[in-house]
Amino acid sequence: MEKKKAEVIQSWEIVFPNDANQLGTMFGGRLMAIMDKTAAIAASQYAGRPAVTASTEAMDFIHPVKVGDRILTQARVVWVGRTSMVVKVDVIAENPITHKRVHTTTAYFNFVALDRDGKPCEVPRLILETAEEHQEYQIAEIVKKKAIERKRHILEAKEQQNNAPEK
Amino acid sequence: MEKKKAEVIQSWEIVFPNDANQLGTMFGGRLMAIMDKTAAIAASQYAGRPAVTASTEAMDFIHPVKVGDRILTQARVVWVGRTSMVVKVDVIAENPITHKRVHTTTAYFNFVALDRDGKPCEVPRLILETAEEHQEYQIAEIVKKKAIERKRHILEAKEQQNNAPEK
Amino acid sequence: MEKKKAEVIQSWEIVFPNDANQLGTMFGGRLMAIMDKTAAIAASQYAGRPAVTASTEAMDFIHPVKVGDRILTQARVVWVGRTSMVVKVDVIAENPITHKRVHTTTAYFNFVALDRDGKPCEVPRLILETAEEHQEYQIAEIVKKKAIERKRHILEAKEQQNNAPEK
Amino acid sequence: MEKKKAEVIQSWEIVFPNDANQLGTMFGGRLMAIMDKTAAIAASQYAGRPAVTASTEAMDFIHPVKVGDRILTQARVVWVGRTSMVVKVDVIAENPITHKRVHTTTAYFNFVALDRDGKPCEVPRLILETAEEHQEYQIAEIVKKKAIERKRHILEAKEQQNNAPEK
Amino acid sequence: MEKKKAEVIQSWEIVFPNDANQLGTMFGGRLMAIMDKTAAIAASQYAGRPAVTASTEAMDFIHPVKVGDRILTQARVVWVGRTSMVVKVDVIAENPITHKRVHTTTAYFNFVALDRDGKPCEVPRLILETAEEHQEYQIAEIVKKKAIERKRHILEAKEQQNNAPEK
Amino acid sequence: MEKKKAEVIQSWEIVFPNDANQLGTMFGGRLMAIMDKTAAIAASQYAGRPAVTASTEAMDFIHPVKVGDRILTQARVVWVGRTSMVVKVDVIAENPITHKRVHTTTAYFNFVALDRDGKPCEVPRLILETAEEHQEYQIAEIVKKKAIERKRHILEAKEQQNNAPEK
Repeated sequence: MEKKKAEVIQSWEIVFPNDANQLGTMFGGRLMAIMDKTAAIAASQYAGRPAVTASTEAMDFIHPVKVGDRILTQARVVWVGRTSMVVKVDVIAENPITHKRVHTTTAYFNFVALDRDGKPCEVPRLILETAEEHQEYQIAEIVKKKAIERKRHILEAKEQQNNAPEK
Repeated sequence: MEKKKAEVIQSWEIVFPNDANQLGTMFGGRLMAIMDKTAAIAASQYAGRPAVTASTEAMDFIHPVKVGDRILTQARVVWVGRTSMVVKVDVIAENPITHKRVHTTTAYFNFVALDRDGKPCEVPRLILETAEEHQEYQIAEIVKKKAIERKRHILEAKEQQNNAPEK
Repeated sequence: MEKKKAEVIQSWEIVFPNDANQLGTMFGGRLMAIMDKTAAIAASQYAGRPAVTASTEAMDFIHPVKVGDRILTQARVVWVGRTSMVVKVDVIAENPITHKRVHTTTAYFNFVALDRDGKPCEVPRLILETAEEHQEYQIAEIVKKKAIERKRHILEAKEQQNNAPEK
Repeated sequence: MEKKKAEVIQSWEIVFPNDANQLGTMFGGRLMAIMDKTAAIAASQYAGRPAVTASTEAMDFIHPVKVGDRILTQARVVWVGRTSMVVKVDVIAENPITHKRVHTTTAYFNFVALDRDGKPCEVPRLILETAEEHQEYQIAEIVKKKAIERKRHILEAKEQQNNAPEK
Repeated sequence: MEKKKAEVIQSWEIVFPNDANQLGTMFGGRLMAIMDKTAAIAASQYAGRPAVTASTEAMDFIHPVKVGDRILTQARVVWVGRTSMVVKVDVIAENPITHKRVHTTTAYFNFVALDRDGKPCEVPRLILETAEEHQEYQIAEIVKKKAIERKRHILEAKEQQNNAPEK
Repeated sequence: MEKKKAEVIQSWEIVFPNDANQLGTMFGGRLMAIMDKTAAIAASQYAGRPAVTASTEAMDFIHPVKVGDRILTQARVVWVGRTSMVVKVDVIAENPITHKRVHTTTAYFNFVALDRDGKPCEVPRLILETAEEHQEYQIAEIVKKKAIERKRHILEAKEQQNNAPEK
């Protein structure tokens, strides 16, 4: 399988009145849609094929985004499996008056590459060069590991309750 | 603090060509926006105040949703802290020809209730009655615990690397 | 022909600045689009086939809806003919501060079920059980009867004028 | 009160994939939103004030509109009361290949003019000149009369049932 | 080739909060999208075929448009070549309180008519009758001539610089 | 006045069915809206203030963009006057199957910076460093010069006609 560097996909947007609640704070869901779009471009471009969102992890809204802010969304493939990719997405908000920039949101998106029949297919192997790329790779592995642990613990909790004597 | 039951918020939608990629599969981000909207209504209504998305966990796209499908999104507050709430969201897709329903997506949204100044404020305590409500509460706790563990492991990995001798 | 109960289709939405005029009052047309979408899901699901809007009757905007309100739209098939269905739609608005709910809008939508060639086709017969279901059925018949009378009176007025001596 | 002629408001649109169901037929609700927007401009311009939709009557979807069609929506105030106006709306669809035009939809919208406090306020009296304007006025009166009859018959049906001996 | 008169295509819109920046001034891009849509209908209808935008010239935003304004967009084919058309577009804004109308925007759009394979194809010859139509035709020729000159001057500047000795 | 370098603003988008005509070719107007949004961010960020579109010049759609293409829009301030800026915008389309990139569109946008009262206000002086930046500056001057010439020639044509003896 081909080896490949991952490109950063950038997208600037302006936050509009319809994107926000009554306090003027941007809806998480609107931001998620922008992050997913940017991540989908990063994943599809890396894989050279359509890619669909399989799950998201660790999506944290650290600082609120306000109506009128300019937001820069950046997405890059940071980890790859055989047919899946982890895309890290960061959002930076810029206040149009003070020009102050704040790191507002971060998330990990899992994408699966699909062939023409919609079946998962192999993706190129990822070339890691800088220390930052190695760190992002390692963090993505922690994120994946915790998701697997969580799934197992939830299953155990469900089984335990199902086996419990009726109240 | 007042005690309260949590209501289920339902929302039906139709999936349109613009919601999907070239394989006719609905974008994750479009679905996230619908889930967040429904979850925000559930959280705001429960809290009796505006509520903003703080993070999402365990968002799993189990089955693809297709153009033309009807989707039913259901959201309910399943866990509450002092100022925060966990909203569980499920999406069911209905094929318009076969009428077959599939459970396609599940996610946990963390919301924070805000007062008039945009500061976090207390929410009612949650009344749990059925076995299912108790189970959902317990699962939300697992989800939260794993998120905290993940945060700690990521911090440790970053510190370790920063302290490592320069390559 | 199969007999069937009609399900209630619910849809929650939030009213945004773009949905309203300068007085902050929601446009009727925006609400109509939401009502038609919800009614179309109710009709298509009942018929088990695509269904298209043939006409609307008695669409009354009783109370204004305001930006920031949460609105619950509910639709149910209340009357069926051979290939047509009447869907009653109600909209309830919830003030996000006072939590007061008001019944704001009501309407009757006529849908026709279509086969693969876009031709009208038969729909299941409707099972009526509760007193409310019988009343809704009866009201739908009044609505239909008045629409037929109106059509006839308009035709008569047109003919009368066309036959009148030139002024 | 001032007397005034009513202007025709025209609006051309193109029908997009997102406006239609799987048979390629435009959703009624999408068309209603366009009709209401055009009618609101006609009513507000006539009244010289904001105007809100109070009800719609006799909305008939005579011919289906298809994806790719160009549609011309025309709205004009045809009847006025003290604070209310009836706007007649017609939609003509033009096939982009055959250039054939079809009259697809017709509806009567009732609008109420509002002052700065959102209270109903007086509108100019309508100047009727042509035979067509007189006919439209007369038809609007029939439409209004039938709506009043319908309201009364529905009320009677409800009272009759409420007074009926319990089953 | 057939000869033909060009029809005026009109489109009324209301300016919404999402269409504007923080000063309440409508984005140029939103207006361009409305102008292009209206121009595309004028060109396609004139050509009797799909027509695509090849370029725009002399797009001038003379007066700002404000949230709440009603805008009337008017488009008409004013010049035709063998396969191309020039569509002049004007936008008039109407203040909803003062009812004052201002000519806010003007632009020239070049469209090319396409056959079924997406290849340019011939359009009808334009019938010019009024003095205004002759003037618009003459102005369109000036606009085209200046665009050709500009293209040539830019090319010359590029060549000159490429041939300049390295600094 | 402060001197400043101009940043490149990037924006990635995916082309959807609703963005295109029946031949699957993206509407010029949809692309203009994306270009204007990206240009507005570039201009506002450079000026450190809101900036509004005053005119566009030389907007050329060189290659058609197709549904499913990924498009990269890039905007940068290339020329500044006292209160106005010229932003050059380029659009590159990437075919999702072949990954071939094509330069599809180019345009020059004139923006004016505004103070809190909506009056034009001074912008920083532009630092030009690379040969490319000098060339872009020179081309922007040609574009401006031709726009001024065009305006004068159109005025002359209008006067000439007005002074012509009545036909």
